[in-house]
Parts: sequence; C-alpha cells; structure tokens
Amino acid sequence: MSTQSSINGSVPQRLAQTRELMSREGIHALLVPSADPHLSEYLPGYWQGRQWLSGFHGSVGTLIVTADFAGVWADSRYWEQATKELKGSGIELVKLQPGQPGPLDWLAEQTPEGGVVAVDGAVMAVASARTLSGKLEERNARLRTDIDLLSEVWSDRPSLPNAPIYQHLPPQATVSRGEKLAKLRETLQARGADWHFIATLDDIAWLFNLRGGDVSFNPVFVSFALINQQQATLFVALSKVDAELRAVLEQDGVTLRDYSEVADALRAVPKGASLLVDPARVTAGLLDNLDSGVKLIEGLNPTTLAKSQKSLADAEHIRQAMEQDGAALCEFFTWLDSALAGSERITELTIDEKLTAARERRPGYVSLSFNTIAAFNANGAMPHYHATEEEHAVIEGDGLLLIDSGGQYLGGTTDITRMVPVGTPTAEQKRDCTRVLKGVIALSRAQFPKGILSPLLDSIARAPIWAESVDYGHGTGHGVGYFLNVHEGPQVIAYQAAPAPQTAMQPGMITSIEPGTYRPGRWGVRIENLAMNRVAGTSEFGEFLKFETLTLCPIDTRCLEPSLLTEEEKQWFNAYHAEVRERLSPLLDGAALEWLNTRTAAI
Amino acid sequence: MSTQSSINGSVPQRLAQTRELMSREGIHALLVPSADPHLSEYLPGYWQGRQWLSGFHGSVGTLIVTADFAGVWADSRYWEQATKELKGSGIELVKLQPGQPGPLDWLAEQTPEGGVVAVDGAVMAVASARTLSGKLEERNARLRTDIDLLSEVWSDRPSLPNAPIYQHLPPQATVSRGEKLAKLRETLQARGADWHFIATLDDIAWLFNLRGGDVSFNPVFVSFALINQQQATLFVALSKVDAELRAVLEQDGVTLRDYSEVADALRAVPKGASLLVDPARVTAGLLDNLDSGVKLIEGLNPTTLAKSQKSLADAEHIRQAMEQDGAALCEFFTWLDSALAGSERITELTIDEKLTAARERRPGYVSLSFNTIAAFNANGAMPHYHATEEEHAVIEGDGLLLIDSGGQYLGGTTDITRMVPVGTPTAEQKRDCTRVLKGVIALSRAQFPKGILSPLLDSIARAPIWAESVDYGHGTGHGVGYFLNVHEGPQVIAYQAAPAPQTAMQPGMITSIEPGTYRPGRWGVRIENLAMNRVAGTSEFGEFLKFETLTLCPIDTRCLEPSLLTEEEKQWFNAYHAEVRERLSPLLDGAALEWLNTRTAAI
Repeated sequence: MSTQSSINGSVPQRLAQTRELMSREGIHALLVPSADPHLSEYLPGYWQGRQWLSGFHGSVGTLIVTADFAGVWADSRYWEQATKELKGSGIELVKLQPGQPGPLDWLAEQTPEGGVVAVDGAVMAVASARTLSGKLEERNARLRTDIDLLSEVWSDRPSLPNAPIYQHLPPQATVSRGEKLAKLRETLQARGADWHFIATLDDIAWLFNLRGGDVSFNPVFVSFALINQQQATLFVALSKVDAELRAVLEQDGVTLRDYSEVADALRAVPKGASLLVDPARVTAGLLDNLDSGVKLIEGLNPTTLAKSQKSLADAEHIRQAMEQDGAALCEFFTWLDSALAGSERITELTIDEKLTAARERRPGYVSLSFNTIAAFNANGAMPHYHATEEEHAVIEGDGLLLIDSGGQYLGGTTDITRMVPVGTPTAEQKRDCTRVLKGVIALSRAQFPKGILSPLLDSIARAPIWAESVDYGHGTGHGVGYFLNVHEGPQVIAYQAAPAPQTAMQPGMITSIEPGTYRPGRWGVRIENLAMNRVAGTSEFGEFLKFETLTLCPIDTRCLEPSLLTEEEKQWFNAYHAEVRERLSPLLDGAALEWLNTRTAAI
Repeated sequence: MSTQSSINGSVPQRLAQTRELMSREGIHALLVPSADPHLSEYLPGYWQGRQWLSGFHGSVGTLIVTADFAGVWADSRYWEQATKELKGSGIELVKLQPGQPGPLDWLAEQTPEGGVVAVDGAVMAVASARTLSGKLEERNARLRTDIDLLSEVWSDRPSLPNAPIYQHLPPQATVSRGEKLAKLRETLQARGADWHFIATLDDIAWLFNLRGGDVSFNPVFVSFALINQQQATLFVALSKVDAELRAVLEQDGVTLRDYSEVADALRAVPKGASLLVDPARVTAGLLDNLDSGVKLIEGLNPTTLAKSQKSLADAEHIRQAMEQDGAALCEFFTWLDSALAGSERITELTIDEKLTAARERRPGYVSLSFNTIAAFNANGAMPHYHATEEEHAVIEGDGLLLIDSGGQYLGGTTDITRMVPVGTPTAEQKRDCTRVLKGVIALSRAQFPKGILSPLLDSIARAPIWAESVDYGHGTGHGVGYFLNVHEGPQVIAYQAAPAPQTAMQPGMITSIEPGTYRPGRWGVRIENLAMNRVAGTSEFGEFLKFETLTLCPIDTRCLEPSLLTEEEKQWFNAYHAEVRERLSPLLDGAALEWLNTRTAAI
C-alpha cells in the first residue's frame, strides 16, 4: 500500500475529506461531472476526477456529494458496472432514464433556500452552468464555479498527457492553415467579433491542420486557441511541438504559448472588445477570466460548421479511405467465416484483434477511431458494450454477432456496423436484421431540402421499424470528422435531439445511418453506413441534397429474410452490393476476393 | 358621404390623426397586429382595426406606423391584394418571406435608442409582447402595452357580435360540463394552481359544452373564463344567454358576469394566489390587470390538450359525421361530373354553392367549417385562394380543379381536399397528383411511438415528394376540433414548426394529412384526409399509435398515373376505396351510388 493510498486510499476516506472542505467553504452540494475544459468525449486521466472520487469508472456519469448524501447518476449502459463498483462506498447509484429529471434537477430541488452548490467551473459548459444557476436562483440558492475542491483532495492526480503534435499535410489536408485562418477571420468580421476563443480540441486540430495523440481514438491534442484579426495563439504544452513545427506555425502567423497561460490571455482581452464564443463549447471557468467589459457574441464556433462540410477534394480522399477500410473488413470477414466454419476457439476479443490487424495493414491507417464493439448475442443488446479480458463471450452455437468498428486514416475516419450470422440465425433474428436494413435503405435513398434540420429526417429511417412496433433508444446518425473525431456536430439525425438551427443539413456533411433493434438478454442488431450529403440539384422548389453512401462492405444476406424487402428496397440493396464489389475488387485477391463476390451476389 | 367619413374617411386622414396622437404620447412606432383579446383565427369586425386603419382587408397582416413611415407586413398569399388596396394610401407593402426578419425584427432595428413602441396590449399575446420587449430593451427602447391609440381615432368602430349561445348536448357531447370542470380542477391542483384564466374561445366552448355564432365557421362565442376550486365564472355579453341556459349553467356551478367585467375580476385575484395561464393563449393587456403578488404558473391550457384527445364515444359520432360529409361530397361530385360533361357554365362560385347545398341537406349539419376553396388551374397554385364575385375562374378547357372544403356537424368537424380532372389533365399534372397521393399514403400508413413530437413525423409524408425535388411551403397537418375550430392545437405535422413538448402525439387527436404541390401561374395540387390517432398496441419497445383515416370520399383516379405507385401504395389505395364504398353506399342511391361504385373501382 502506497503512502498516498494510506492518506486517502478508499472512496469513503476521499468523500470524508471532501465533505470537510465543503463544510469549511460553506458548500451544501458538490457537483462533479464527467468533463474537461475542452468538453471532450474522451477524458485524459487528469480530468477523470469523478472516477477517482466515486470509484465508478464508467466513462459517463455525474457525482453529487452533500453532507449526508452521495450519488452517481448514470444511464442504463452503466447500471451493472456502477452497482458493482459503488458497493460499500456509501455512494448511491441513481438510474438516469430518458425524459426523467437528471442531476441538475435534483440539485435544483434538494438545495436548501440560500444554499451553495459548487462545481469546478473549468469543466462545466457555460450553457450548463447558466441552466443550473437559473434553477438554483429560483430557490434563492447559488452556484459557485470559482473553486476546485477536488484538486485539494486528489493527491495522486495523473499528469496531463504529452503526446507530440504533428501536421495533417497535403494531399490529405486539402485546405491550408493560412486559408482556414483567413476564412475564419472573414467570418469573425461578418459577425462583428474582434476576438474568438476556441476550447474544443477537434475545432483546434482542424483549424491549424494539426493532429496529436493525447486521448485514445481522437487524433487531437490538449489546447486552446485565441484568434483576432492580427494574431492566432495556440495554447499547448510547448514540449509537444518540435522546433521545425514551431517554425512552420510561426511562418503561418501562429504564436505558441504554454497551455497554462490561457487564463492570462483571456484576462488580457481588452475591455470593450467583442469576443465570439460558443456557450456549449466553452466552460464557465474559462470565460470567468474575461473582463466584464468584454462583449460576448454567442454562436456556434465557425470551425464546427466549416469542418463538418467536407470539400470535394476531401471527398476523394474519404472515398479512398473507405475503399481501404472496406478491403480490410473483407479480409477480416474472410478469416472469420473460415474460422467459424472450423474448430478454432474465437472470442469477442479475437474479433477485435484480427479486425484491428487487418486495418493496420492498410495504407494511410493511423489508429482505431473508437473501441471495437464485438458483441455476441445478449452482449449485442447493449449498444455500448465492450468486451474485456475479464468478461467476454466465446463465439459458439447459434446467433448473431454484432461488430461495430472504425479506423482513423490520414484521408478520413470510418465507422461501420455489420451483423454476422453464427451457426443458424432464427427467423426472428432475420426479421430484426431485415427491418433494420429497411431503415438504412429508407434513409439512404432519401432526398431532402438543403438546410433541413437534421433531427427531422430521423422518422424516415424509423418509419419501417416503427411499422412493426419496434424502436431503438439511440440516435440514427451522428456527424463524423475528416481524420478527426468519429463523433462530431453540428448535425445529428435523432428525434431525441433538439432541431436547433445549427443542425441544418449542408453539402459535404458526413453522417452515420445506423438504426438498430435491441432485445435485452437475447441479441442486438445494428447496421451502419456513413453517408455524405451531396447536391441532388435545384428545382423550382429549391435546392435538394441526397446521400452518397461512403461505407463499402457487404451486408450479410444470411442474416436477412429477403422476402420482407420491397422491390424498391431490393433494387437499392443490389445496386449497393454491385458498387461494393466493383470498388473493392481491385484491392483484394484470393479468398478475400472470392468472399467479396459471394457476399455481394444479387438477391 | 357620411359625417364620419368626412372626419376620417380616408386612410391618409386616419394615419394623420393617429400620428398626431402618437406625437402627443411620445410614441415612436405604433404596432397594429391582426389579433383580438382571444387570439382567434377569425376576428369580429370590432377587432379589425388593422384593416380599418390601413385599408388592407386581408385577414392576416401587421401594420407599423412611425412619424415618417407606414408599412403592412403580409405573406405571399396577400401580395396581390395588398398592392391593390394600399395604392395611394402612403402605406408600403413589406413582403413577408419565410425565414426572413418580420415586423418585430424591423421594430427592434429601427426604433431609436430610448424610443417607445406602442401596441394595444389587449390584443398581443404575452409571449409575443415579451419577445418584442426583450428585443427593444437591447436597444434601450421600450414597449408600451397600456394604451389603445386606435380606439381614439376609430369613430365608426363596429360593435361586438351578439349571437346567442347554445348548448352542445348529448349524445354528441359525450362528457358533461360538470365532469370537464372537475377534471380541470384536478389538473389545477396537481399543477399547484389556485386559479386558471382562459381567453381562447374554443377552449371555453369545449369546457362548458357551449357553442355560439360570433365569428364565421368557428362555432364559438366571445368570452373569458376564470376558474378556481370553488368558482367557474364565464364572462360574456349577458344578452347572449337566455334564462333557461343561465339556470342550467348556474346549476352546474357556472357564474355569469358581463364580458366587460373581466378586468375587475382579474384585479380581484388575491395577492399570493397562483394562477395558471398559457402565455401563448392570453394577451399582455389582460394579464396586466393582475396584482404583482399573484404568482404565475405558465403552461398549456389543460383544456387545449384535453379537447385535442377525442374519446372513443366522440370517435363514433365523428365517423358518422364523416359518412354524412362523404355522402354529401359524392352527391356533389356526381352533379359536377355530369355538369362538366354537359354544356352548363360552371364557375368556381357555382362549385361553392352546389357543395354547400349538398352538405346542408345532411343531418347534423350546422355550417361550413371554413370558406370553400374551389380553385381552377392557376388559382389552385395559391394555397389560400378564395373565389369572389369580382374575381373567379370559369371551369372550362383542360386542367385541374382543387376543392378544399369542410363542414361543422353536431358530431364533428370535417376538412377535405380533392382534385377533379377537367377535360384531360396532362402527364405532368398526373405525376404531381400521384406524388402528392404517395405522401398521403406514406403518412396514413405510418405507425409511431405514442408521445412522439408531431413535427417530427412530417418527413414521412414528404419523403416521396422530396424524392423528386418537390416540396410545399405549408405544414402537412393541423389539429381539428370536435364540432369546434377546424384549426386547433397542440399537435401540428410541419417541419417548419418547433417540436415543443406539447406537440406530442396522443390517442384521440385528429390531424389533417394534406401534402401538396404548387406551380405558380399553372396549377396546384393538394389531397387531404383527416386521421385520428389510435392505439396500435404495446410491445417491449413501448406504446405505438397509428392513424385511422376518418375522411371518406373517393380520390379521383383520372388525375393519377397508377404506374407510379408501388404495390404497397396500391394496396392502401384500394383498401381505402373499398372502405369508402362500403360505408357510403348505405347513404346513397341512384346516380350518386353509381358514381361511388365507379370512382372506387380498384386500380
């Protein structure tokens, strides 16, 4: 046992120490979200304070501590894990359910009149802080964002990640850093903003044509950026940037300052100046550094919209990456089919290894774009399942194997889900797969007005699934980056999402199309392609967009019941398979080419 | 020329006098919306002040007057009419376009720092007044809602309507007034509201099982209602209620007070009491009467949701009303077909007369539910066209006749649009009609989760229309009352509408399904049925709803190109026609029965 863990080794000890500090500061409730100053999906260990303090290691969850209560709010994905991990800690699991009040509502209700709620403002979005603050004010209670209690208790806090930063270069980087900065400055001028502050890592990576390795799967680096008409300052740990890169950046007018100096730089934005920020993409703690005389202009980061709209030149690279990814998948599936037919013992972990290895052999491959989900039968019913050394299934007997995976390539980011039959799938399983495929086809074939708010398209995918009283809890589609985050905005195809103006569909956006069906304890089905918005043409009724399906990989007909497809659906399916065959054949040979030809035969 | 018109007979004189008053009061801009204290769709003459002051008689438009500018904001429906009527008045027509800034934005931009904008608070929704007030405050300008300049100038203002009020009785009234009041009081208690104030006329008519004739088409009466656990007070012109009805109401615990006493009653709501109001359904001027110590609880009027959910007993009456309405339409179409085949001269006005006469012969008929739209060829391209004595088309030659009409019956409200071929429709016209029919079928067949926000369903109807780069500017569906307003909320199927929580689909709601295609200067197509939300069943994925198509009338196959329909679409179409034939046959004989059989033959 180390010295540190003897100081505050157990969760109850950590909580006790935290409560002492709360009492000293007159704080009634401490809120610890799963978040960092960049509002990232994947958090470096340095910001996994909620995990440390609660002992619950799921990636999403919110901890609230009061004098006589401690609870973690987690959604259904984590209930099993949280129940185990929270046992004996004195922390309750509060089951978060869609449409039910969440932790902020709980605080608004439970905080006593005149009470104080504290959250580390450095990791809470301005928009969320405002919502909570508003709710508390209704009870004459108050939100403090100026104190980080956790850092006082957290003696063995990990250090910040320090992976080197590198350039995203031509030919894959199709627009130069200089052009992107010039375009951004035009937008700032048009919006009447003197300054712009960016905290989100993919926005920064995209703007500066830089990539890093500070977190898993997303090729980004921990940083901030502050831009005006004259200067562009990048705040990063200077050790991540070598001299050569530093010189290149300086030549492009980019100044480097240490990551820790961002607060000073914000304090130095002159009174009377206007600053554009996205309240959903910057934290309250950071903005608190601004002089109250700085005029905030609030809106989506211009880079968020710009990076979502891939250019025609980007599209060419993306198509090539999709071909390489598809070829890797074909090689993997060829192995899988023969392994399943043989006597080899395969587990969900084997799937992950073999598939990753197939991708690694492909040119331009950099890393996975997320943790591979290989989920057999009942495990497939958990949409965010990930097999571990401790718990995973052996692929044997009959059923459905769901494989959701993706890669980062210099020329694009992939994300694909396919269903694999193991032994003999049942008629019910085939009906589930076929119905989900109908949803994929319905949306993939759709045309829609340019600018339509993307959440409004969701019902097109769901209509054939709803028709049989089936539905799924996740969204149908998320935006995907260009050698960047596999989840990006601003568009989202989900009836659960608010159709905000920034979700408007624009040419070049890439979105997943991934309906599903989940039968807890039995199996799960999901089929996923990525699709890019292409201009369909202009009529007297306006401009229309259509989807170009980017993902190239057979959809296994052995999981389907073709008689349930309409003529129009069969046409789409056969045309898709013909294109997959035509484009992947040149990249394959031998058994894999044979597999491709078999699996793309027309139905 | 009368004395009055010599005082302020012309629009320029009226404006001059208004500007004098504005100057006296230090008002920079006067806003005159098309609205009344009940935020009704149809305004009694007493509240048609915008028409009187501007000389523009279109039903929707907003007038703004400043010292050196006057303008009417009107949407494209009214541009032709407004251009004519505003000529020489000194008032500009400002063309209102979807997505473009409107009159409130204009005020927010044009009002000088420290300026004052006035609007008669009695006719502006609380929600709109707040929006405008917020925008003005950003410029340090101010909104006054406490002054009605118009009434000082408007010497020949019409009096308030005075039609008698009558009861909506069993069997068509399936829930008693007492039960409705008891249910409302339960809801108030659950919401923590001591009082509830209702200003919207259909909510009041529904709650009290009363109907009136104060405005065209909507069987409502000018009134307010104030309710608490002990009292229910109805504010109406007492002359509208006869002694017998007064006694019935008193027996049910309903107190009558004169319409003019509502302000006193609101002032008498005790300090400290809580009052539930819907900020979108009550005007700022009325709420200004409340003591500042009254606590407002804001939310949808409970009656708005309750009346949208028709009971199974209501549904039985509605089906009967639909049968009667369908039979009337068959008789009318039988006449129309033979008239078109003969030498009779038919105009759009003849259509209106004959169709109204056919409805008038049906049991339970009370009135039209809106002004009949009979629009031939180019006139059909204007979705809200109405033929007049001065301007109307003769039905001759080739083309498409669009007929959108509806009736009020004691047991329901109807609203139906059908296309009629005149001579020989072109292939393009047939394609337009078929594509619109595909939209009707797609949505009519849909199943969807109970509680889904109705705007999200719109893309199901539009997908087959968008597929050919066609779209239409209006919503796909509006709610419909039960012997009440033909347009009611809270649900709306329109991608242009905000998917607010109250738009959730619930069993018993009736919504129109009416996609269209409009080719300006050429023709317009719309096909409309009403459909009721029915429970489809519950699965492990939740509760699902489906539509029961209520409207019963053939869809003329001579306007269609059946080869463009899929097998599934043909099945729906033939099944619909079979049901129409089965249910309308017993109500028809002779030529009309023969016509029904011919027009419902399977394709």
